[in-house]
Order: sequence, then structure tokens, then C-alpha cells
Amino acid sequence: MISYIEPRLLKGFRDFLPHTEIIRRGLIENIENTFKTFGFVPIDTPAMEYAEILLGKGGGETEKQIYRFKDNGDRDVALRFDLTVPFARFIALHRNELTFPFKRYHIGKVWRGENTQRGRYREFTQCDFDIIGNDSPSSDFEILLLIRATLLNLGLDVTINVNHRALFNRFLSHIGQVEKSVEILRIVDKLSKIGEEETRKSLCEISGDVNVRKILEFIGAKGSFKEVLDRITELSGGACAESQRLSMLYQFMLDAMPNQNNEPFVLAPSITRGLDYYTGVVFETFLNDMPDIGSICSGGRYDNLAGLYSKDTSISGVGSSIGLDRLLAALESLNKLPPSNSCSIAIVCVEIEKSGQYQALAARFRQEGLPCEVFLETGGNPDKHLVKQFVLAEKKGIRYVIIPGVNPLTDNITLREIAARKNNEISINEAITYLTSLIHG
Amino acid sequence: MISYIEPRLLKGFRDFLPHTEIIRRGLIENIENTFKTFGFVPIDTPAMEYAEILLGKGGGETEKQIYRFKDNGDRDVALRFDLTVPFARFIALHRNELTFPFKRYHIGKVWRGENTQRGRYREFTQCDFDIIGNDSPSSDFEILLLIRATLLNLGLDVTINVNHRALFNRFLSHIGQVEKSVEILRIVDKLSKIGEEETRKSLCEISGDVNVRKILEFIGAKGSFKEVLDRITELSGGACAESQRLSMLYQFMLDAMPNQNNEPFVLAPSITRGLDYYTGVVFETFLNDMPDIGSICSGGRYDNLAGLYSKDTSISGVGSSIGLDRLLAALESLNKLPPSNSCSIAIVCVEIEKSGQYQALAARFRQEGLPCEVFLETGGNPDKHLVKQFVLAEKKGIRYVIIPGVNPLTDNITLREIAARKNNEISINEAITYLTSLIHG
Repeated sequence: MISYIEPRLLKGFRDFLPHTEIIRRGLIENIENTFKTFGFVPIDTPAMEYAEILLGKGGGETEKQIYRFKDNGDRDVALRFDLTVPFARFIALHRNELTFPFKRYHIGKVWRGENTQRGRYREFTQCDFDIIGNDSPSSDFEILLLIRATLLNLGLDVTINVNHRALFNRFLSHIGQVEKSVEILRIVDKLSKIGEEETRKSLCEISGDVNVRKILEFIGAKGSFKEVLDRITELSGGACAESQRLSMLYQFMLDAMPNQNNEPFVLAPSITRGLDYYTGVVFETFLNDMPDIGSICSGGRYDNLAGLYSKDTSISGVGSSIGLDRLLAALESLNKLPPSNSCSIAIVCVEIEKSGQYQALAARFRQEGLPCEVFLETGGNPDKHLVKQFVLAEKKGIRYVIIPGVNPLTDNITLREIAARKNNEISINEAITYLTSLIHG
Repeated sequence: MISYIEPRLLKGFRDFLPHTEIIRRGLIENIENTFKTFGFVPIDTPAMEYAEILLGKGGGETEKQIYRFKDNGDRDVALRFDLTVPFARFIALHRNELTFPFKRYHIGKVWRGENTQRGRYREFTQCDFDIIGNDSPSSDFEILLLIRATLLNLGLDVTINVNHRALFNRFLSHIGQVEKSVEILRIVDKLSKIGEEETRKSLCEISGDVNVRKILEFIGAKGSFKEVLDRITELSGGACAESQRLSMLYQFMLDAMPNQNNEPFVLAPSITRGLDYYTGVVFETFLNDMPDIGSICSGGRYDNLAGLYSKDTSISGVGSSIGLDRLLAALESLNKLPPSNSCSIAIVCVEIEKSGQYQALAARFRQEGLPCEVFLETGGNPDKHLVKQFVLAEKKGIRYVIIPGVNPLTDNITLREIAARKNNEISINEAITYLTSLIHG
């Protein structure tokens, strides 16, 4: 007796069927095209590295979620759980082979043994982009602009909330609370989740009434970018390097989009990006048509990316990461997914013996930039075989079907428009011209 | 004291720096474009699956090489070591969601703990394409044609060696040696490696003198496709289903390429693809300019792809796999790699305060389809800062540099051609027209 193995997937892992995979690849291609127009270049790193490298300083959540095991050579290895740590290791290893400032992107899969009940996947695709080896506000700004351009090219209007992490610390220092900054940051970061009242209560336990009022005034500052900037500058004890940097960013926004003011950019003093390693500008990106889905692209400036792997002078940078799964879900909800069918023409099979000639006919369409599938069999019963193939075409999302003549390469063809159920006898050249105008023009 | 972690990679794993990654992605895009013109659609499967599923019936080599471990939920999991086994599982799991014949491709990484001393990598990219659910010779032929088109679109002329696995078995049956077919196949498969003399010796031990002469006559048949077909048909005891199928393939070749005869296709009776699961047509592809590198695209027809995972009626198919690493190595040796620089224009930074305006200027070029990088800082010393940026441009492979005027969005710009060290003062619109003609036309 033969035993069968039940075909099943691990929890949190997915197959991508053609319909979805075409959309995913189209989305990635669209994003990459924007990156390229800004002169960003791709890299890749291995899925598997020494666990020591990926875990670095460690951290409770990461240690629990990482896929870690001994390989056949008894090495302690793990699968990458993000693209940031491998990038830090990459920079430390290859710094002498790279030209700085280094503008790179990296799109790849990462793995985390997360709790799938929260709707999370254990295998998902990240899309990171960074500028490394440049400290100036022009690179902070370029990342912001690139986020906006990338999402605009997907048909999405966004609001990017910007803040300066060190300005918040300067403010805490000004009110004598800097030694509590880690706890305060942790609470403030949850403001949008737990609400102002909870935030106030938690902060009170740490900093006392007077300071809480000041902190809430700082993180709650509202108005135009300029108004908020003036207010938080004042609350931090006056102009400083950090406020000047934000001021310069603001000028860049006005200059880069002369007709739109600084419209997509908001100064949001409550954004801190939690306990991440950011030290300068931080940001989060929200869809104007679907803000509730949360930030789909976040990031910031960091001081010393590769510090853990290199004793040499530090390399700072600024970068961001797009959550591809969340973005896909948003595009789907907003009905803005790119079309999924890649081929809209098929040549039906009238006599299987002529399959070689059908391929030669298809080659003529392909040469003219018209993707063209060849159907491989007649579908049995001669009375019904065409109908069967029309049904197949419809199932596959093919819109135009070519019924070749007796001499497939010279005779007129019958062009059938599937949706309209309309047949038209025309020459091959006429069909090429007509289909080109329908599909490309 | 801070301790550093040495940045290093696991043996057999690689980073891809931008130069190489741009080429890899360009190569994959090129291959995908050909697949699309034939109406093939992409799928993806998880990197990790239940070990039971990936190991299937098992097999010595696979068991030794697979990365297998217990995940945090104590599940016995493994990383995929090819794209064929996951595809079989995929078909068993999703057969009711798919439309047959199903023409799919799958490009993805796989992992094998191979001996790296043979120059093998432990992480590499495979590129598989198959037609599932169709038995007719027209699908065998389409795969052959697609191999040829894919490689031709990369600038590579190929010879595809074709054979029919079952015709060889029929021949063995005819000479009364079919019960030894496994051993004979194993020896014959090594013909090109061990030479005719060794093959003869090994075969002699199994089949005896008379039969060896017949076997060598069969596998050594030379001449045109037609001549070889006639010869091996005769040696197998006359026309049969298998020889008729090859005959039909031959007719398709003539019909599909009327001006080229069947030039890229050779009938090679010694090709058996070892002990693989193939049951029908098998093939191997060699580069005309570099045959010694070995087959860069092999495959064949199989009877029952998903049999291990499904009790239902069997699904047959025909498919092939391109070895991307070998292909890249060949393209490099033949000096046929696609160009690696993705961005050939940069705007230099004259005053950092104008970075916003430089981005607005860059946007005008990007809108016209001209990728354009913005340099982020002046490079220090005002006397030398332009020279420094020219050097940076040269290092990055940027060919044209734009030096903006005092009013970056309205003044004439200076266009510098890096290689020629030539400056030209022109208007922004003139620069767009000129660069468009240089880069796109």
C-alpha cells in the first residue's frame, strides 16, 4: 500500500497563487522603479547567518521569535528576522568596496516565529531603503521625498509625520527629566494607542504633575509645520542644532514642492519610534484614505549603524522600511491594485498537428510586443472544441482569442473578443495593429 | 570595554553588492519578460515547510544536504532544497483553484548544505518553468521553444539536446535488457564524463558483448534529427508511440522556425537525465559559444507530479529549470552581461541650503523618464567641491553631471560629460532633450 503525505503548510506561511503573485511582483517592480529614478541601487544578503551576528546585543522579543538552529556542520545559525541587522553587518564587511554616500534598497523575505493569532505571518517581505555615510539634512529630506514619490507612484496620497528624536531629549533635559527619558519615550510612543488620559496617568507616576503638563503640551503641539516647530523650539529652551535641522527640512519641503506648500509633511512631536536605535529625525507614513491601517513606512536617522561589527569610525545614516503586506492589504481595500493578468491574447488549437505553425504565428505577435499564449490541445469533440477553449480563455482572463486559418501563417484569422462574444475575420497584420492599439494604446 | 562581533558570512553564502545585484535582477527581469510573452504566470511558495513534505520518499543526498531543524513549536521543519518538491505539494494543495493546463514559472532561492569545495553555493537561485495537466507533444515543444527564446533574448545561441526516455527503455526491452535498465541508464548518463571506453567496459559487465555493441550504437547514433530518429526507431524494433512523438516534435520544429530548419534542436539518444523522475521527453541545453560549462537548462516530461501528496488522478507535465548562477558565469565569460549602472545622471550640490530646489530640478528629469540622483553635500573646500563630486560621479558610474545655476529651477545649467571632461551651458529643457536622446535613443 502506498502512503500519501498530506499536503499542508506551516502555520503563518503562505503560497502565492498566480493572481496574487503577479500583483506582488508588479507592486515590487513599481516600487523599485521609483527607487531607481532616485539613483538607489539594490543589494542582497543571505537568508541565513551566524546566530551571533543576527542576534547582536540580543533582545527578548527577537530571541524568542528568531528561527535558530545548528546546521550540519554544528554551526549556530539563524534566519534573518529583518533587513537592518544584515545591512549593518554588510556595511562593516564591505565598507571598503562601497562608494559613500551609499544609497541602497533591499527587498527580501524575513522570518519571525510570531504569534499568528494577531494576523501576523511568519514569512513576510520587507523593503528597506537607506542613505549611509551622510549626516546632512539633505539626506533626511531625500528619504522623506522618496517615501512620498514611491507611494504617489502607486496612486496613494500620504501624510508623513516627522519629528526629531533628539529635540525631544533636549526638551526633557530642559525640564530636568532627561534621566527618565527611556520610560517617558516608551509611554509617549503609545499615545495614539492608549489615548491621552492613560498617557497622562502613566507619565504622572514617573514625572509628577507639573512635568506631565509640559510633556503633554510638547507632544500635543498642533498647527502648521512652522507653528509646531516654533512652539516645541520654545518649549525646549530656544533654538538649537535640532530645531535648526527641522527648520532646514521645512525649507527643503517648500523648495522641493513649490506648488504644494509642504502639504504631505506634518511635524508631529509625539512620534518617537519607541526604543529603536534612532537618534535624529524619525517619521511615520499614513495613507490619507486609510489612516487607521497604521504607518506603512517608518524610519529615521541613526548614528552608528555598524558599530556592533566594527571598531572603525562610525557610519551614520537615515532609512526607512515599507511593510509590503500592509501596503498590499491597503491597495486591495482601496481598490487600487494593479491589474493581475499578464497575457491577454491566446491562439486556439484547431488541429494539434499544426502546433508548430501556431507557435510561429504567436512569435509574430510576440515580436510586436504582444504577449501571446498558444493553447495546446483542441479539447476533444470537434463540434465543441472551440467553445471549450473560449471558456478556458475566459477563466484565464484572456480577452482576445485568435482562431487561425487552414494555413495559419498566411490565411486570415478570426479574432474573437471574449467578453463581447464577437468574431471578426481579419488579416494577421490587421490583428497585430488592432490588438496593439487596444492593449498598448 | 565594548566587544565587537566579527562581521562574517557562513561558508557557501554570499552578499550581493550593487554592481552584481543590478545584473542579477536585470537577468531575472529579462527571463521573466520572455516567460510572460508565452503566457506563463508566476507563483511563490514558502522557504520553509514540514520536513516530511520536502523529504518525501527521501533519498541519501537530499537527506544529507537539507537544512532541517525543530522550530520553536517543536515542529520538524526544513528549508526547500529545490522548487520541484514544493511545486508538487502546491499542485496537490491547490489543484481546485488552478486552471489547467497550468503554465507557471517560479524563481526563488533554495538551500543545500553542499560541499563548497566543488565551487557550489549553499544558497542559490533556481528558475523553474512547467506546463502541468497536458499530455500532448505540443506542450513538450512549447517548453523547448521557450528555453530557446529565453536564452536568445539574453543574446545566447543554444543547442538543445532532446531524447525520449521511454524510447530508450523500449529499445532495451527489444534487446532483452529491460530488467537491467536502471544500471544501464546510470552508466549511459555518464557517457560524456567517463568517455566511450569506460562506458563500454561498465556496460560489458552488465549486458555482455553483443548487447553492449547495440547499446553503444543506439546512444551513439549521429546525424540530422531525422536520420537519428530513423536509426533509433529501427534499433528499437520499429515505429512506436515514442518514436511517433519525437517525429511530431520534429515536425513542430520545422513548422515553428521555417527559415532555420530545426537548427537549435539535436536528437541525442544518450541523454537520459540519470535516475530522475522523468518518463517522456528529456532535454539538456548547451551554449554554442561555451559548451564546456555544461547544461544550463535541463528538464523533461514526468507522469505524476503530485502523486506523493494526492490520491487523485495523476497530473502529468513537462518542465525545465535554468541554473541562474551558471548562466551568470557564462554571460560574464562571454562578455554579454547587461550593463550594471541604473542611473547615469546626477545633480551636484553647489549650496546645501538649496537641496530642496535641487530635488525639484531632479523631479523634472525624472518626470521625463530620466533617472536622476541628487548629490547630498558639497564636499567641503569650496575650491574643490565640484571636482570631488565629479570624482564621486565617476566612481558611481554616473556619466552626466548637472551643475545647477544660482536659481536652480530657472537658470541655465552646466552639463558635464564625465568621460569627456566637457562642460556645456544649456537650458534645463535643452538638457532634458539632449540627455533623452543620449540615454534612450
